[in-house]
Amino acid sequence: MTDLNTQIVMKRHPAGMVSEDDFSVVQAPLPTLQEGQALVRNLVLSLDPYMRPRMDPLRSYAEPLKPGELMPGGTVGEVVQSRDPELPPGTLVAALLGWQSHGVVTKATVRVLDPGMKQPSAALSVLGMTGVTAHYGIVKLGQPKPGETVVVTAASGAVGGIAGQIAKLKGCRVVGIAGGPEKCRYVVEELGFDACVDYRAPDFEAQLAAATPNYVDVLFENVGGPVMDAVLQRINDHARIALCGNVSQYNAREPYGLKGMRQLLMHRVTTYAFVIADHRDYWPTALADLSAWHREGKLRFKEDVVEGLGNAPAAFIRMLTGRNFGKQLVRIAA
Amino acid sequence: MTDLNTQIVMKRHPAGMVSEDDFSVVQAPLPTLQEGQALVRNLVLSLDPYMRPRMDPLRSYAEPLKPGELMPGGTVGEVVQSRDPELPPGTLVAALLGWQSHGVVTKATVRVLDPGMKQPSAALSVLGMTGVTAHYGIVKLGQPKPGETVVVTAASGAVGGIAGQIAKLKGCRVVGIAGGPEKCRYVVEELGFDACVDYRAPDFEAQLAAATPNYVDVLFENVGGPVMDAVLQRINDHARIALCGNVSQYNAREPYGLKGMRQLLMHRVTTYAFVIADHRDYWPTALADLSAWHREGKLRFKEDVVEGLGNAPAAFIRMLTGRNFGKQLVRIAA
Repeated sequence: MTDLNTQIVMKRHPAGMVSEDDFSVVQAPLPTLQEGQALVRNLVLSLDPYMRPRMDPLRSYAEPLKPGELMPGGTVGEVVQSRDPELPPGTLVAALLGWQSHGVVTKATVRVLDPGMKQPSAALSVLGMTGVTAHYGIVKLGQPKPGETVVVTAASGAVGGIAGQIAKLKGCRVVGIAGGPEKCRYVVEELGFDACVDYRAPDFEAQLAAATPNYVDVLFENVGGPVMDAVLQRINDHARIALCGNVSQYNAREPYGLKGMRQLLMHRVTTYAFVIADHRDYWPTALADLSAWHREGKLRFKEDVVEGLGNAPAAFIRMLTGRNFGKQLVRIAA
Repeated sequence: MTDLNTQIVMKRHPAGMVSEDDFSVVQAPLPTLQEGQALVRNLVLSLDPYMRPRMDPLRSYAEPLKPGELMPGGTVGEVVQSRDPELPPGTLVAALLGWQSHGVVTKATVRVLDPGMKQPSAALSVLGMTGVTAHYGIVKLGQPKPGETVVVTAASGAVGGIAGQIAKLKGCRVVGIAGGPEKCRYVVEELGFDACVDYRAPDFEAQLAAATPNYVDVLFENVGGPVMDAVLQRINDHARIALCGNVSQYNAREPYGLKGMRQLLMHRVTTYAFVIADHRDYWPTALADLSAWHREGKLRFKEDVVEGLGNAPAAFIRMLTGRNFGKQLVRIAA
């Protein structure tokens, strides 16, 4: 075992589009453990859009990162040293250790995973924050009734793909929005959405109208910007919007101005913006459903794995510009 | 009694700013009553911002008006002929008879008013739709806790003035936004808000920040546009927005693009757009509170009364451009 911890920190606040120069790699000695702590060697890191607004020096749901601070993130790893008998070496854990090769945990800050788990990285997608976010947005906030129309933006993305499949399990007509024919084909043929519209198509609005003949009762919104405005033109009376992300705007220097306030008002829409970190008490409910559906083969998902922590910045930028395909992961160690 | 009914109809859909040329006056014979009906001579008509979007040929919460159709609106009047013994001539009623001198009602379509009521027009403001709208938005949707900060836009307006006073009764810090120093003075000195900021002031944003040192927990929004964006810059975590109106945009040819989606997401705000017509079952609850507070002298309000039905279009335009002061009413008959 190496005796250094490799970390990727934010070097500076990005100006508009994030670049690799906004990060730097630092190395530090491995920490000495206190009683009750364990040292984890990270195997996989999850990259998620929420990390981008954390890099801006603005009032937000968490303290903004300061230059030199470790990039945050969900991780799966194994305990390699321990001063807690309940976390013996070899224990597989999901934690929030960020962009680093090692980290220190306690029992309270990890979720211990089944050592026989076939695909531990699933704890970062369908059986982790990704899945719980999708469940909360669709089930708790969207409250879709069978037969209603649910639209999911970034439908081929990690959260969007699960969100749409949950809406299908609830008996809804589910329409995805994604970028490009390949992603749209995946959303319909692999994930089982009823339709998927390519927002890059020149007749996007017309296609969206054709795909939502009964208008839109629930919108699971990951993207914001003009795509959201297009959906608002199709919004139904008393629709519910789960506002989960605004990824089209995270790297924008000037925010897009959303034109659809009239639609919100005239159709008496409720818009719930949420961050799943606020709802720790919801995890057990959601994970029970997600685990059962996953076991029964009802939730399909794709992983996009990049090798090596050093490639995390490039993979992060690739994800924010929609060039990944599937849940973005970084393999830190085998 | 005249034997003609005078009506103001929408002549054509307005293009952008509504003008007097978009209306015309028509006269028709008084209707013959069926069993169970009564003829009402209207005394007062309420003018409200919601009437403007009804004039646009767009999908909305009600069928858009067609050219030639009667302008809608709340009215107070007296029964002058009756074929229902429960509505004898002389009965004072509140109804939705629109911009006309007479109308036909049944027991189910009116609220019978106390004949001894000192100010029957109050049934169109504090003790009617205006008051119920304010109550629903603040109490039911905003759910303000004592000590929280509530911001009300169009604070000197009919709904805004009541909304802010209700929030004061609930123990909140209440900050109004209004146009011009005279209205702001009224909001603070007459209505008892803690502060009122003039959105026309060159340092409006700085004044708003100073008036909301603990940020904004509840926004009762009547106006939309850049004023709403300014409030979103001050929004607190888990804030609630009661989206009641968007009057700054009703006459706009191009809708304003709301820039504050980031604020909604980062602060996990819930935005409830509502139209009080959806919530008939809420009226008794709200009217019980409003009547008690009104009796106890706890709700102040101002009326801006224009004389003569023929002046309704001009008064309507005046109200939409914020040049009225108080609840806009039209006296149709004495």
